[in-house]
Amino acid sequence: MICVLSGGTGTPKLIQGLKEILDSEELSIIVNTVENNYFSGVYVSGDIDVVMYTLADMINEEFWYGIRGDTFITNEFLEEIGCPEPLRIGDRDRATKIEKTIRLSEGYTLSEIVDIQKNKLNIKSKIIPMSDVDSDIKIVTDMGDLDFHDFLIDKGCEPKVLDVVYSKVPPSDQLISTIEESDMVIIGPSNPITSIMPILSIEGVKDALKKKYVVAVSPIVGKSPVSGPAGQFMNALGYEVSAVGIAKMYKDFVNCLIIDNQDKYLEDEIKTILDDVKITNTMMKSLEIKKDLAKFITDLNK
Amino acid sequence: MICVLSGGTGTPKLIQGLKEILDSEELSIIVNTVENNYFSGVYVSGDIDVVMYTLADMINEEFWYGIRGDTFITNEFLEEIGCPEPLRIGDRDRATKIEKTIRLSEGYTLSEIVDIQKNKLNIKSKIIPMSDVDSDIKIVTDMGDLDFHDFLIDKGCEPKVLDVVYSKVPPSDQLISTIEESDMVIIGPSNPITSIMPILSIEGVKDALKKKYVVAVSPIVGKSPVSGPAGQFMNALGYEVSAVGIAKMYKDFVNCLIIDNQDKYLEDEIKTILDDVKITNTMMKSLEIKKDLAKFITDLNK
Repeated sequence: MICVLSGGTGTPKLIQGLKEILDSEELSIIVNTVENNYFSGVYVSGDIDVVMYTLADMINEEFWYGIRGDTFITNEFLEEIGCPEPLRIGDRDRATKIEKTIRLSEGYTLSEIVDIQKNKLNIKSKIIPMSDVDSDIKIVTDMGDLDFHDFLIDKGCEPKVLDVVYSKVPPSDQLISTIEESDMVIIGPSNPITSIMPILSIEGVKDALKKKYVVAVSPIVGKSPVSGPAGQFMNALGYEVSAVGIAKMYKDFVNCLIIDNQDKYLEDEIKTILDDVKITNTMMKSLEIKKDLAKFITDLNK
Repeated sequence: MICVLSGGTGTPKLIQGLKEILDSEELSIIVNTVENNYFSGVYVSGDIDVVMYTLADMINEEFWYGIRGDTFITNEFLEEIGCPEPLRIGDRDRATKIEKTIRLSEGYTLSEIVDIQKNKLNIKSKIIPMSDVDSDIKIVTDMGDLDFHDFLIDKGCEPKVLDVVYSKVPPSDQLISTIEESDMVIIGPSNPITSIMPILSIEGVKDALKKKYVVAVSPIVGKSPVSGPAGQFMNALGYEVSAVGIAKMYKDFVNCLIIDNQDKYLEDEIKTILDDVKITNTMMKSLEIKKDLAKFITDLNK
């Protein structure tokens, strides 16, 4: 069984590759929940939904958010009546969010709800929210403390990031056991600060990882992230924005770091931090490349 | 200014007629809120929305519920993922319900929210919720106490009604003054027990009505209501299901009762209860009939 730590949009692309080459039962995805929040009265667990829609072959690959071919009738009418949504939610996408909201209010845990939904969508892989307890994430900036969403959307990532702070939450019931039962853990190429670190910071996760064969894929290629604001966050926390910075962040519990062909020149420097570095194409611009990267990673454990 | 007490679907049909023959500024609608409740995580003020959509020329006249031509994409996807909605909510209709839910959670009163929405929909008439405080309505039946919605939809109005009980709520800010400022009050042909009585039972309403010229339109024609379960409720509370029963219920504060041509034979009996009875066509099967009835009523005050 292969366990993947996921968040944002980088890792879901790798999951597309993994699901092509593995039996879906062999894949378990642990997902960041630190950005979960209520928008327009519905509970939005963005990172979980992206994973769910990806595994169900429903993901909108243009935005890596929401359902492919979804309509926006409610969203547009809200705009029309002068109550624009802070997040653009599609009509089908809203249904899965409404179900989560209702079931949460009925006392189901997020883990239970995700399980119900992924079964209904015929997903055989496990999807494990990192925690069933909501956490706050705050981006401390030169324009004050901002919610992640405010920083990302309202402020367009403009403010200078000084720190990233999130509340400590307990692991969901299956988080640690899923890592323990896996043959290999993949830390996907997601934002290390806002997607991966929240999972790693949960009690017991790093210890569980240290006993496993862990491969990380660097989300930084060259001097910048493949997508998103990871660079600003890494800078703020004192890491250089490069695969070297990633190696430093992950060195205590990662056995092998995969870096992109473009970063081959960093191989020797990274080897002073981490024993094992592998080099391949990590720019997942086609399903073929995603599958190749998935195979490259899973072959490391043979 | 003409003030109408409304609920359900009978009175909105009359409102369609009234808005054709009056300046919309001259029309104020006081609306029952006793059945308001949360469904699928959104606040549903059914009777208010019907009035709002009717005044905005958006009402779905097939069901007298929701918006004409609305789609049901979220509703259908909720069904597909195994989370069917207890109420079928359309995509545009959901937007107005989401806005109400959000604004209620932000501390707006229902009256303020309805005002915002009706202005946005270019409605010049006033729409006054009877109360800004939520009330419970319970249908006491031989199958136990039921919510109104459970009785109506889940149980298909089957159980024998023994009593109807609702909690006492204070008037909204504009309820009494709207009656006081009106030249005439029309009690529309809505369910007298579940739509009209909740308004009448609010402190100060009957006293305000006694000082006004009040015309009621009987919702009962022959031995049964034109639509809906009013008959069962009237029976349970000891009123005969006929225009005579309506006259007995309303006699203390109504100056004139309008009954349908078919009930002409009841005229003498009703005159022993109420001084003034008028007879006309109240079966509002076309816009022409709605306008004729509206004109017939408003002419009574000239």
